[in-house]
Amino acid sequence: MRRGEIDSPTIAYETLGRLNERRDNAVLIFTGLSPTAHVASSSADASSGWWEDMVGPDKPIDTNRYLVICANSLGSCFGSTGPASIDPISNKVYRLRFPVLSLEDIAASGAALLDHLGIDRLFAVIGASMGGMTALAFSMLHAERTAGLISISSAARSLPFSIALRSLQREMIRRDPEWKNGEYRIPGQGPATGMRLARKLGMITYRSAEEWETRFGRERTTDEPPSQHPFGIDFEIEAYLEAHARKFIGSFDANCYLYLSRAMDLFDASDHGGSLKQALERVRLERAMVIGVETDFLFPIHQQEELAQGLKTFVKDVRFARLDSMQGHDSFLVDMDRFRPAIASFF
Amino acid sequence: MRRGEIDSPTIAYETLGRLNERRDNAVLIFTGLSPTAHVASSSADASSGWWEDMVGPDKPIDTNRYLVICANSLGSCFGSTGPASIDPISNKVYRLRFPVLSLEDIAASGAALLDHLGIDRLFAVIGASMGGMTALAFSMLHAERTAGLISISSAARSLPFSIALRSLQREMIRRDPEWKNGEYRIPGQGPATGMRLARKLGMITYRSAEEWETRFGRERTTDEPPSQHPFGIDFEIEAYLEAHARKFIGSFDANCYLYLSRAMDLFDASDHGGSLKQALERVRLERAMVIGVETDFLFPIHQQEELAQGLKTFVKDVRFARLDSMQGHDSFLVDMDRFRPAIASFF
Repeated sequence: MRRGEIDSPTIAYETLGRLNERRDNAVLIFTGLSPTAHVASSSADASSGWWEDMVGPDKPIDTNRYLVICANSLGSCFGSTGPASIDPISNKVYRLRFPVLSLEDIAASGAALLDHLGIDRLFAVIGASMGGMTALAFSMLHAERTAGLISISSAARSLPFSIALRSLQREMIRRDPEWKNGEYRIPGQGPATGMRLARKLGMITYRSAEEWETRFGRERTTDEPPSQHPFGIDFEIEAYLEAHARKFIGSFDANCYLYLSRAMDLFDASDHGGSLKQALERVRLERAMVIGVETDFLFPIHQQEELAQGLKTFVKDVRFARLDSMQGHDSFLVDMDRFRPAIASFF
Repeated sequence: MRRGEIDSPTIAYETLGRLNERRDNAVLIFTGLSPTAHVASSSADASSGWWEDMVGPDKPIDTNRYLVICANSLGSCFGSTGPASIDPISNKVYRLRFPVLSLEDIAASGAALLDHLGIDRLFAVIGASMGGMTALAFSMLHAERTAGLISISSAARSLPFSIALRSLQREMIRRDPEWKNGEYRIPGQGPATGMRLARKLGMITYRSAEEWETRFGRERTTDEPPSQHPFGIDFEIEAYLEAHARKFIGSFDANCYLYLSRAMDLFDASDHGGSLKQALERVRLERAMVIGVETDFLFPIHQQEELAQGLKTFVKDVRFARLDSMQGHDSFLVDMDRFRPAIASFF
């Protein structure tokens, strides 16, 4: 992997709502690893967004009051420049010639987007999961650019358990013969088997054992008679994972996945000062909110507590919300009854 | 997969210690998915066994006082009949022609072994993980054959979270082109990539996030300069998993792994009576001990509690030990300071 620079990358973004006269009502959302910039439906695109229940008129992040900006991450494949894009210099797809990507790079692309939009300082930067790490990096490295931070089911650093899981997901993709060292013919296609396996492991780690016990128990699938498929799908939980994995394949580029996954492993806020405390000293936040879920074992609650405690030294108004959602890491996408009021309380 | 019968299977076993005159001091150990029958060193084989610290003269399972029997599971590949064995009728390796395997079959092979050894009734049957499920099946289905049961880091049924993980491990193996629908040329070889991935996922789930945070943190590996291997090994945790996976490949037959893994998913004690309570009514135990570990997320502590509670209705003396070991599911193999006294208290 080479270190290097990308000349004037493209950042795909969507906006909802309007900037007010004082230009102080903008909210920037950084996404998790896989979403697009389409956070919610709008007049320009009426299809449902990935956080439809959270963002919109009269919703917790109220587009009647705020200008909401959501960007597709640098390094992703939904309009922003990434390993699946054409390198304008060589006129070839970057693939593994894309330089090492960090969440700090994604944060910097967010700052450049604000320059482009003529916004000096955000009301708040928000992110969940990888997006929460990016939002934290933004708050430290572009400190004057935001007055507020909401970090959801995220962390100040990746720990070895989640690094191990992501490393294994990447290995599943890399060891698929169709990966071809990143040179599969059509970006977005290629190592379907590796992507399927990686997605299934993702699904397993994004939810919780409790949820699945309640939802699926030991129910057998009725779709296919198990006896016809040696070691095939037998239990409902297996059918559920299979259905989700199928949807994922073909929609996300494998090389982009590898770069973004690795960027999460590499993230450690402490790199910006020597310790977490010294790093957090950089922020110029007026308010911060840290939200975590007890059943999240990918970004465990003790990491949310660590971040909230760390912020308290330097930020006057820090709220910490510990939610008892059952859906693990993905709760912010599905447990709207708990997440809506928590986030509404910030706005 | 066909249902069927295996004619007079071979069961490989080892014994340590001597049967007393009353023939009531025998202890039978069922293993987890991967071990051999070599539980501890003996005069016949001086090499260290997989539970060396637990079994031997003056150890918690004291071979000066007990006859200890350990069998390689039916369906495994270390001497016992399994998918890697030659079918005496066709004179070919069974591979996927081996019939569906259940833990109840492994329990029955243990009862047959006792017949062979002339032992009517055990002092205790013991098992950890898959072996604990097998020991429970033995206690229910061959109830007159044992006075005691020790179940360690096990459960009365597989739940969807662990089924999902094992299903994914099997899929990693099955989707390796070298698996060849089970027809790889040499038993014990074949889908090395799939086995490597499955082993890594196993290692991740056998330990705990807390342990790895303490042991590895975010330490970088010093073995290989990361820049030379795109998406290769960078962190210590990745080097650790790689080293363990390499050791596993070539030592365990892939088809055997698939059969034993599936047998765990299929196990549900409730199948023997309609409910767990009705199933446990079958036991004729005088004493039982259930040991679990709080950091075990593969066989969570609430499953140990459920089993201990269930046994209390039908067994006079039931002990439940909740250990705060840091090493997760594998604690019984490594946290000897906590496990030795717990198991010694039973004997």
